[in-house]
Amino acid sequence: MTKWVYAFGDGSADGSAEMKNLLGGKGANLAEMSNLGLPVPPGFTISTEVCTHYYDNGQKYPGDLKEQAIAALAAIEGTLERTFGSNDKPLLVSVRSGARASMPGMMDTVLNLGLNDETVEALAAESNDPRFAYDSYRRFITMYSDVVLGVDHGEFEEILDNYKVDRGYRLDTDLTADDWKTLVPMYMERVVEVLGAPFPQDVHEQLWGATGAVFGSWMNARATIYRRLHDIPASWGTAVNVQAMVFGNMGEDCATGVCFSRNPATGENAFYGEYLINAQGEDVVAGIRTPQSLTKLERETSGSNLPSMEEAMPKTFAELCDIRDRLEAHYKDMQDMEFTIQQDRLWMLQTRGGKRTARAALRIACDMVDEGVISKENAVRRIDPMQLDQLLHPMLDPDAERDIVGRGLPASPGAATGAIVFTAEDAEAWKADGKSVILVRMETSPEDIGGMHAAEGILTTRGGMTSHAAVVARGMGRPCVSGAGEMRVDAANKTLTCMERTYTEGEIITLDGTTGQIMDGEVDMILPELTGDFGKLMAWVDEYRTMGVRANAETPTDAKTARKFGAEGIGLSRTEHMFFEPERIVHMREMILASGEKSRRKALAKLLPYQRDDFENLFRIMEGLPITIRLLDPPLNEFLPHNDEELAEVAKSAGVSLKEIKARKNQLDESNPMLGHRGCRLGITYPEVYEMQARAIFEAVVKVAADNITAIPEVMIPLVGMKSELDAMTAVVNAAAKAVMDESGKTFEYMVGTMIELPRACLMADEIAETAEFFSFGTNDLTQTTFGFSRDDAAPFLDVYQRKGIMESDPFMTIDPEGVGALVKIAVKKGREIRPDIKLGICGEHGGDPASVHFCQQIGLTYVSCSPYRVPIARLAAAQAALVERDES
Amino acid sequence: MTKWVYAFGDGSADGSAEMKNLLGGKGANLAEMSNLGLPVPPGFTISTEVCTHYYDNGQKYPGDLKEQAIAALAAIEGTLERTFGSNDKPLLVSVRSGARASMPGMMDTVLNLGLNDETVEALAAESNDPRFAYDSYRRFITMYSDVVLGVDHGEFEEILDNYKVDRGYRLDTDLTADDWKTLVPMYMERVVEVLGAPFPQDVHEQLWGATGAVFGSWMNARATIYRRLHDIPASWGTAVNVQAMVFGNMGEDCATGVCFSRNPATGENAFYGEYLINAQGEDVVAGIRTPQSLTKLERETSGSNLPSMEEAMPKTFAELCDIRDRLEAHYKDMQDMEFTIQQDRLWMLQTRGGKRTARAALRIACDMVDEGVISKENAVRRIDPMQLDQLLHPMLDPDAERDIVGRGLPASPGAATGAIVFTAEDAEAWKADGKSVILVRMETSPEDIGGMHAAEGILTTRGGMTSHAAVVARGMGRPCVSGAGEMRVDAANKTLTCMERTYTEGEIITLDGTTGQIMDGEVDMILPELTGDFGKLMAWVDEYRTMGVRANAETPTDAKTARKFGAEGIGLSRTEHMFFEPERIVHMREMILASGEKSRRKALAKLLPYQRDDFENLFRIMEGLPITIRLLDPPLNEFLPHNDEELAEVAKSAGVSLKEIKARKNQLDESNPMLGHRGCRLGITYPEVYEMQARAIFEAVVKVAADNITAIPEVMIPLVGMKSELDAMTAVVNAAAKAVMDESGKTFEYMVGTMIELPRACLMADEIAETAEFFSFGTNDLTQTTFGFSRDDAAPFLDVYQRKGIMESDPFMTIDPEGVGALVKIAVKKGREIRPDIKLGICGEHGGDPASVHFCQQIGLTYVSCSPYRVPIARLAAAQAALVERDES
Repeated sequence: MTKWVYAFGDGSADGSAEMKNLLGGKGANLAEMSNLGLPVPPGFTISTEVCTHYYDNGQKYPGDLKEQAIAALAAIEGTLERTFGSNDKPLLVSVRSGARASMPGMMDTVLNLGLNDETVEALAAESNDPRFAYDSYRRFITMYSDVVLGVDHGEFEEILDNYKVDRGYRLDTDLTADDWKTLVPMYMERVVEVLGAPFPQDVHEQLWGATGAVFGSWMNARATIYRRLHDIPASWGTAVNVQAMVFGNMGEDCATGVCFSRNPATGENAFYGEYLINAQGEDVVAGIRTPQSLTKLERETSGSNLPSMEEAMPKTFAELCDIRDRLEAHYKDMQDMEFTIQQDRLWMLQTRGGKRTARAALRIACDMVDEGVISKENAVRRIDPMQLDQLLHPMLDPDAERDIVGRGLPASPGAATGAIVFTAEDAEAWKADGKSVILVRMETSPEDIGGMHAAEGILTTRGGMTSHAAVVARGMGRPCVSGAGEMRVDAANKTLTCMERTYTEGEIITLDGTTGQIMDGEVDMILPELTGDFGKLMAWVDEYRTMGVRANAETPTDAKTARKFGAEGIGLSRTEHMFFEPERIVHMREMILASGEKSRRKALAKLLPYQRDDFENLFRIMEGLPITIRLLDPPLNEFLPHNDEELAEVAKSAGVSLKEIKARKNQLDESNPMLGHRGCRLGITYPEVYEMQARAIFEAVVKVAADNITAIPEVMIPLVGMKSELDAMTAVVNAAAKAVMDESGKTFEYMVGTMIELPRACLMADEIAETAEFFSFGTNDLTQTTFGFSRDDAAPFLDVYQRKGIMESDPFMTIDPEGVGALVKIAVKKGREIRPDIKLGICGEHGGDPASVHFCQQIGLTYVSCSPYRVPIARLAAAQAALVERDES
Repeated sequence: MTKWVYAFGDGSADGSAEMKNLLGGKGANLAEMSNLGLPVPPGFTISTEVCTHYYDNGQKYPGDLKEQAIAALAAIEGTLERTFGSNDKPLLVSVRSGARASMPGMMDTVLNLGLNDETVEALAAESNDPRFAYDSYRRFITMYSDVVLGVDHGEFEEILDNYKVDRGYRLDTDLTADDWKTLVPMYMERVVEVLGAPFPQDVHEQLWGATGAVFGSWMNARATIYRRLHDIPASWGTAVNVQAMVFGNMGEDCATGVCFSRNPATGENAFYGEYLINAQGEDVVAGIRTPQSLTKLERETSGSNLPSMEEAMPKTFAELCDIRDRLEAHYKDMQDMEFTIQQDRLWMLQTRGGKRTARAALRIACDMVDEGVISKENAVRRIDPMQLDQLLHPMLDPDAERDIVGRGLPASPGAATGAIVFTAEDAEAWKADGKSVILVRMETSPEDIGGMHAAEGILTTRGGMTSHAAVVARGMGRPCVSGAGEMRVDAANKTLTCMERTYTEGEIITLDGTTGQIMDGEVDMILPELTGDFGKLMAWVDEYRTMGVRANAETPTDAKTARKFGAEGIGLSRTEHMFFEPERIVHMREMILASGEKSRRKALAKLLPYQRDDFENLFRIMEGLPITIRLLDPPLNEFLPHNDEELAEVAKSAGVSLKEIKARKNQLDESNPMLGHRGCRLGITYPEVYEMQARAIFEAVVKVAADNITAIPEVMIPLVGMKSELDAMTAVVNAAAKAVMDESGKTFEYMVGTMIELPRACLMADEIAETAEFFSFGTNDLTQTTFGFSRDDAAPFLDVYQRKGIMESDPFMTIDPEGVGALVKIAVKKGREIRPDIKLGICGEHGGDPASVHFCQQIGLTYVSCSPYRVPIARLAAAQAALVERDES
């Protein structure tokens, strides 16, 4: 017989903290506290398996569930010497959800269950407080009707409001016991009016009604959206916790509160919390009454004159302090606890790992290592890599006021304030004038790079988390909000319209790239700090990490940032980004418009010195570390301007007619540029381009070698699908290397490899590895082709997919392990068959995503490469992945 | 020791006809004729392995080659009692290429090798004809210098021309023996002038020089291009045939000729050929003298007064007839033979399977079965499936004169003549006026369908063999020439410029979609004939075929054509093509512009009756045969017009502002529509669209059932990459089926399956097969995503790829067995694991490509589906594939 129901309380439990998947977080921790002998109101947990069963079987319960629940209920009755539904010492229970991951407020709860017209009288008699009993009863009727029966709570509020008006009452507290007693039948009548059926008096009917409602709420809209946002699979299900009620609102010797074993904002090792006397838990959270401090010190710090619990209830406070110490020592982590004091008796209602800021997380972990509570390894395992992101960028002061005027996707973290401009040129011009600007565009393209660099932050109204703007901004560490679809950019008139407001050029806005918020005016910020606890933790991280971490970088600034953040090399240096500066783009366009190889070579010769300087700079910055340099990749069209005015300029400077330029541009236009004439296809049609780039690389190698600087270039051929492509391009690179060696009389080391970013490359990886000395997985493009998703176009339908549960996470954020991952695995296996020591890396956006980093560890990649600002995240994720691997081996 | 050299002649040979791969076609057949005891001038073949070795080893020969060649040469000397390089009865040889597949005229040949200043005298003495000897010598010098030494033949022509002017000669035949004798030293001097070295007198040096030149010519530009066009791999290499010279130009008792054992144009069983008295083989081909008929009957038919060989050389003719009979009986196929008569002695220089027209191929095969020469199976094996194409479309009269004004890709076979128009609307209007038109466009889009249907033929200046125009045209059986890049369309002024000529609207042109030619004016045509030999062969084909053949069709015309051509069902019916007719597109656009589900449903309700009628028609035509119906696939954008004028019209009829329409269109614009919001992504975002389509299908099923017509619908969900997508859409289809069953009170059978056209679908095929009842491989899109090639954009670089030898065949024409094929195999394996009896088909363009059909047979697909006009080709290819499979099992 499957066990569906797990009892807890009275110093023991069927479950434990280990059983979170089965019992949910709340149920597992209630069981654990019971096992520790802490005062927990007895109850039982209906497991998450019941939820799964319920949804897999047309919303029916397993046959033997009720029997098990009744037995568990009987146990509670025995412990407390109370009886469910009895009119002598009736047992009241709460029915709450409890999923594996915390989903605060997303699902339904019913309190005071077990009250009916008879038990309410017994409660009144027992508590000697009819007002409390009838207030509880009317609260239960409202809550149950709303949650279980679907009668909107407005129905009851209306009755109450009318009643108060009739009697001249202002506050609920003005109502007496008799008032509530009068109201209850009126509530009952309204239920009959709405439903055509009476409110259930049978307490067992109440119990199963509430249980069904909690399971039902697992699939409600709020919960579904929350799950989507937090990557929680629907298949996990929720548990249901049925627990004896305790009351913090039975008089002045009662109270309720929440507390943290350490400060969740700063991480300081100080007991921290709030409580309210004579109140229910909801009252602390709801903010109707101002909660009081837990400790005297806290009260004094905040300048409050309401007594702290330490002062008001010293005995119970001492008991709570003791429990705090025991729980923290037991869980070896900062705890977030809820408690209720009923008639001077302390009851623990919940404990769980406390949410904390990134700063607090680091401090707590480091302190606990110092205190000998946890090991360095535990500290490393405990920090959420994504949370580090908060520490790596300037961020908005959490206390600052925000006038939010719009929202988009949190495309690149950090905050930025500036005057809005609408073109990349304006951004550069304003920046040159010493102004801070926010670049606002429908979407960005490679020719906007200069402007993006000049801007403090970037806002686009189109494009997703992996749009050009998002990817480039993350690479540069510029905050970016993308796909703010409700805003409208009028580029011609240089206006940005958000909701009702219209901004013109030069007006100030603030972006929060961490949340996607767009705010009016300037908002205060705080700056990141990379030493102290951060530095300490990152040093530990590298002790456990087995996989390398590199950065994707091409500018000196990016490369320096990458080194500062601990990158062990550059995994992707995109050479095309080097062609957009004004004095270069001219020659680039000349090259593109060239009528034949000869004039193309002439233009390339002018670009060569620039490229060589770029590489020289990079080699100096990254001295002794490898740099993977990808040869020209994007379609040539991206280097040509879009409007007639600019085209005319290009025509003029290139000495050809506008008509010719337009014809050439037209010829370069493609239906699906992502699948078009780009990558090594350019190198094959115009080998002289790759030849120039290879020569620039090798000449730079020779140049820095003169200063005793070792350059380690890894030349990467993009978009290879066939060995023959790589062979042809490798021959071009080798010829350039030989030529430079012959000319300079120096020898140097280099590698030639390829980006694996097409399904065919994965399938042919054995053949390709005969030539390639390394593979770097370009999982952005591989995701596009494997799914047939254009990342520039997918946002609208991926959103629908996630809302409808077709797809759980965005495959451009976290690698799809089944499809894209299967291809990567095939490539790794085939590559190693031919070349066992082949260097394997990943340079897609996934390189900075912790889940994807775990995947990379699993399949044994040599390194991951990500944007410079993600390097610490990747290092931490890699360390955690290595620890998981060690656990599993 | 490897055997590199294979001798032949004198009634025996080292090789045989089976050894074509090693000896090349010519060498193998020379050996075979020798073995048959036919009079073959003795010689030897240097095998293709030497060619491979030569190119793999820096153009060096295997060490023991020369030794073997010298031994073989000695054998020839023994047989003929002549000596190579001797001044008494010198042996002269020819050195010719001979690849596995015929590559006429692509590689180099040297004749009369072995002549030098001494042997020429011996030849003059022996033949008693110094003019013949010195003429042969100067020809040899010219040919050898040109081919081997790289001295342009113009150098010698200049000397000859000057000499003739000086002497007042007009024709070469005016020159006497002394003249040639005088010229030879002048030629020799010119060689020294150009090269700085003398012409080789050493005959062995000559022999190795010529051999090297033949191997070298394997890689010359002409040969490389020819191989590319005919899908011949460079790795095959060529053999070199060294053979004793025989002379047809030694006097009036000498002759040379070519002949076919049956008529290669009609297939008639009549000896057919041409010959010339006192001539060299080259003279017959070169067309300087008019060749004479072989037989008396032929001479009479052609009205010639020059004697036939039958009349002029009756004895040798009888001998030749005997050889013809022996060779045809031996090879059991029509032979193409070359012969030379030297002093009344007949020598056979070549025999090979004769090239023939499609009509002749059928007739010969059928006749030979009737004659008991070959089996039906052999007949089926023998016909080239692609050749059938010629018979299925109207074609240009081969005898008609063609004024070719341009060329493009042979995108859809057949010929068409008509007045040119530049818009689809014009095509329809002109057609309605009873005019035949050719639709000329830069490229076509789905909204041109009506115009394409109205046109006799389609010409585009952009797009490749699988562009929209090409695919749709093939589907419709309309001749099409695509990607005629040298022509310019000026749509605004309605002109087409080809080379120097400019055509305006209404001028007549003719297209040959089989060759890609564009001709001025009208050209005479002949019509296809599908009975007789064709019908006979196709009946045999079906006896051997094990794989099903279906057609891709959606219009009644296409469906009828498909049945006529023997399709066993429809493998792909694209529902979107049904939305382009004027009265439908209005509602389609209304649907696209709908602001929400409700108004979308309203528009869909208007489309429903049209769709239902479409399906009803198809079900009636295909009665009893399955129809795979693909639900809406293309991006919605394709249904909106492109220019402002048309958009304004749509706005007006939809009752919204132009601005709104443009905004919506803008919203639908995608960077990479191929990877965008299309396929089941539409169905998931707007389930009501698929719901309407499914309802239309099932209502049509019920309707035709009333007439006792069995419809077999297979509903296909496009572009699935995840099981969850298919699940969601299958639920929509099943709900529609249930609704129709409930409403009508009838039950019916149907299947739901999916198109496998994304790499991810292949990798997840096991999961997908849990839901899918069938897979249809959409290898067009799968090729696009696997390679990362947009078929709309790939033509320019694929062309370069083929020219540079990066890629041997166009993967959109013949399935890429290594990459795309690997994915298909994975999907087949995974699909069958879960659902062993899963129906597996292919509906991409590859379904009509013979090589791809073989691949489909190998991996065990249930059927292939192709455009209606390709059905006979696919049937034949499938039969051949089944026979190959039987051979291999």
